[in-house]
Amino acid sequence: MLEGEKLKLLEINPMEIEKRSFAIIEEELRSMGIELSEDKKHVYLRAIHTSADFDYARNLVFSNDALERGEEALKRGTVVITDTNMGKSGINKQALKKLGCGLECFMADEQVAALAKERHVTRAIVSMEQAAKLYPNGIYVIGNAPTALIRLGELIDEGKCQPALVIGVPVGFVNVVESKEWIMTKGVPYIVAKGRKGGSNIGAAICNAMMYKLTRT
Amino acid sequence: MLEGEKLKLLEINPMEIEKRSFAIIEEELRSMGIELSEDKKHVYLRAIHTSADFDYARNLVFSNDALERGEEALKRGTVVITDTNMGKSGINKQALKKLGCGLECFMADEQVAALAKERHVTRAIVSMEQAAKLYPNGIYVIGNAPTALIRLGELIDEGKCQPALVIGVPVGFVNVVESKEWIMTKGVPYIVAKGRKGGSNIGAAICNAMMYKLTRT
Repeated sequence: MLEGEKLKLLEINPMEIEKRSFAIIEEELRSMGIELSEDKKHVYLRAIHTSADFDYARNLVFSNDALERGEEALKRGTVVITDTNMGKSGINKQALKKLGCGLECFMADEQVAALAKERHVTRAIVSMEQAAKLYPNGIYVIGNAPTALIRLGELIDEGKCQPALVIGVPVGFVNVVESKEWIMTKGVPYIVAKGRKGGSNIGAAICNAMMYKLTRT
Repeated sequence: MLEGEKLKLLEINPMEIEKRSFAIIEEELRSMGIELSEDKKHVYLRAIHTSADFDYARNLVFSNDALERGEEALKRGTVVITDTNMGKSGINKQALKKLGCGLECFMADEQVAALAKERHVTRAIVSMEQAAKLYPNGIYVIGNAPTALIRLGELIDEGKCQPALVIGVPVGFVNVVESKEWIMTKGVPYIVAKGRKGGSNIGAAICNAMMYKLTRT
């Protein structure tokens, strides 16, 4: 802000700001020599928008059927499952409502906590088991716990669930890279942030991008 | 994960993983020639831990009194205010409880929504006004909306609030950099992520880092 310049930012429409932001991101990507594929652009742009981190233009990978299967599921009012309440908070409620979709996170569930304690495993693990039981064909948004993603992969192997889409974007330094590489071998539709980066915010952003494409005209 | 190697990740203790993660981050920072100051290390490490983005080692800036004032406020059971429900979700409830602190976000408040509509301004703006009225000396964690940070700065100028600490880490491409530079001139303790990066997750991570330092033995 220049010296003496009056702040006139407060009336600006959030949708207008978002539009300008996306234009800036696209322009900078072009200047970096990165061309996004048209059908996946909305997902890449929103991941970058939510983090200001251009690495997502390179590290997001999609199975061939990911967007198609994900959109189909959203259109038929699937349930979206997150591995954190933060991810749950970040997923747009209006868009969910328009699509008639549900939203669940079992991390703070008392029964899950009790079971995890009893079995000496993490709540992330038990919450995936619970989700697989109730919503075997849901969209799974894993933005935090690699153990959640690993357990989900095992549940798929065991035939206990067959997610419409796995958004596999846990963040971190231990087991994270491996958990993401592993889920990509399970034969289910996936969107994965390869490498260490990701987060509940990225998971929510990817899910929102898909929903906005279907609900915003 | 190597072919044929059995997954044995599921029993690992989350606290153990966190410890190993922090050790990896410190080692990589050393190899990058970055030496973190001892008193601020917990904040830097947790911001990097939550994003896997080493940029935070360079872009986080602190006013001289930021940590001292923030810790004082947390110890006396201040109220933490966030600009998103996602940020609110990410702030550790156990640590808040141990410290006797409150946690508020007015973004989804019906009265705030109605007032914003009536005045043709964003909910972010009205939610800051509401927070300033109720908790003028709280800790403000702004991880999303530059307009929230700007309105907060104006409210400080108008003598309507004097936050114990502003964690100013909105993310984005329009007005974001300017809003952060501006809040740093307001004479209140701040922790700011300079540049475009930040987010509700980063804001929560910084607040959690400060709380964990006081509550974990």
